[in-house]
Amino acid sequence: MAVRTIEVRERVMARNDELATAVRHRLAQHRVATFNLVSSPGSGKTALLEHTLEDLGQELRIAVVTGDVQTQNDADRLAAYTEHLVQAVVTGGACHLDARQVQAALDAVDLESTDLLFIENVGNLVCPANWDLGETAKIVLFSVTEGEDKPAKYPKMFQQSRYAVFTKIDLLPYVPFDITRAETIARDVHGALTFFRTSARSREGLEEWYTFLRDQVGDTRAL
Amino acid sequence: MAVRTIEVRERVMARNDELATAVRHRLAQHRVATFNLVSSPGSGKTALLEHTLEDLGQELRIAVVTGDVQTQNDADRLAAYTEHLVQAVVTGGACHLDARQVQAALDAVDLESTDLLFIENVGNLVCPANWDLGETAKIVLFSVTEGEDKPAKYPKMFQQSRYAVFTKIDLLPYVPFDITRAETIARDVHGALTFFRTSARSREGLEEWYTFLRDQVGDTRAL
Repeated sequence: MAVRTIEVRERVMARNDELATAVRHRLAQHRVATFNLVSSPGSGKTALLEHTLEDLGQELRIAVVTGDVQTQNDADRLAAYTEHLVQAVVTGGACHLDARQVQAALDAVDLESTDLLFIENVGNLVCPANWDLGETAKIVLFSVTEGEDKPAKYPKMFQQSRYAVFTKIDLLPYVPFDITRAETIARDVHGALTFFRTSARSREGLEEWYTFLRDQVGDTRAL
Repeated sequence: MAVRTIEVRERVMARNDELATAVRHRLAQHRVATFNLVSSPGSGKTALLEHTLEDLGQELRIAVVTGDVQTQNDADRLAAYTEHLVQAVVTGGACHLDARQVQAALDAVDLESTDLLFIENVGNLVCPANWDLGETAKIVLFSVTEGEDKPAKYPKMFQQSRYAVFTKIDLLPYVPFDITRAETIARDVHGALTFFRTSARSREGLEEWYTFLRDQVGDTRAL
């Protein structure tokens, strides 16, 4: 029973990796820098994207694919901030997006007119770590209202991510969270992580985040 | 491929339900009220249990089974607050506990000397909704730092839970969260939900939570 489950899962994962490779190739052809945002539910993925679309949307052509278990709430929120496409994928119960869903969503995106693509994954610190979506990099969001030891408790997500964005740092005075200690714990599971410290409410750290995004698009354009 | 996956999954779930029924029978025989705590990572399951063990631990005999993807951090934290057993289950990557793991963990628990059992599930708003562990009821924790629309976005978890505990309400002045609206959204997906409003930091609402727990144990003892 257990063995059979694992066999099937391996075949599903292998198929996903093939599709992810195709997605990655397609995005590279169109020079679209693509970031897969992963985090706990409620860590502020949508809030960060709202600001990013509002503040960088005139300068960069940004498309978004949102993944949600049941609603299109995030896509609706984001559509208010951009003329570009926000494509909603409802996973219907699944705890992560897969490459097939992203591939299908991309059919609706004019990639030639896109500089930057965000994939807002299902809020979940476990499942999305295992699913390559063809992204340039995974970016894990980490709210300071969560415990400092999240990287140790969910190591795979932090190992699979190239960047970690602390969110809600305006709440630091009110929560028992030592951000330096959290960085140390995160570095223990993935030494090469690059950190951002942001607050969508106070706007702290957003300029550094935007500079990073501009550089990523520059890099992709220069390919 | 998809069909085969579903077939295997159904057999795994059916086997889980059998084991959960056996666990439920065993817990009922020993009159142990059992609550399966589910939530996003960082919503404060462990903090709520720390207070509960400290404040009710002399009065009620409380055992805990913690489920974590990788570490035993939660179990270690809780063990400092109780003389009773805290049994850690490491799921090794899986996004939820299953009934087989709970059944094995219970072998280490003296059920005859236990009034109340908490199962602290993996921090995840998706997967644990599908897995019956033989509990008396699921209790979903909902931090006010998360969005008000979490119940709409993760409806199955709120439908499967009989109680919803708001946590971190001391942060309400600093976050854009309307708790009445959140309750309305939660009631829309599950009309029979009973709510608690708590803060582990300010201790607000803890007495109501303890009264509820005492009543549950009373009910079970009276069976």
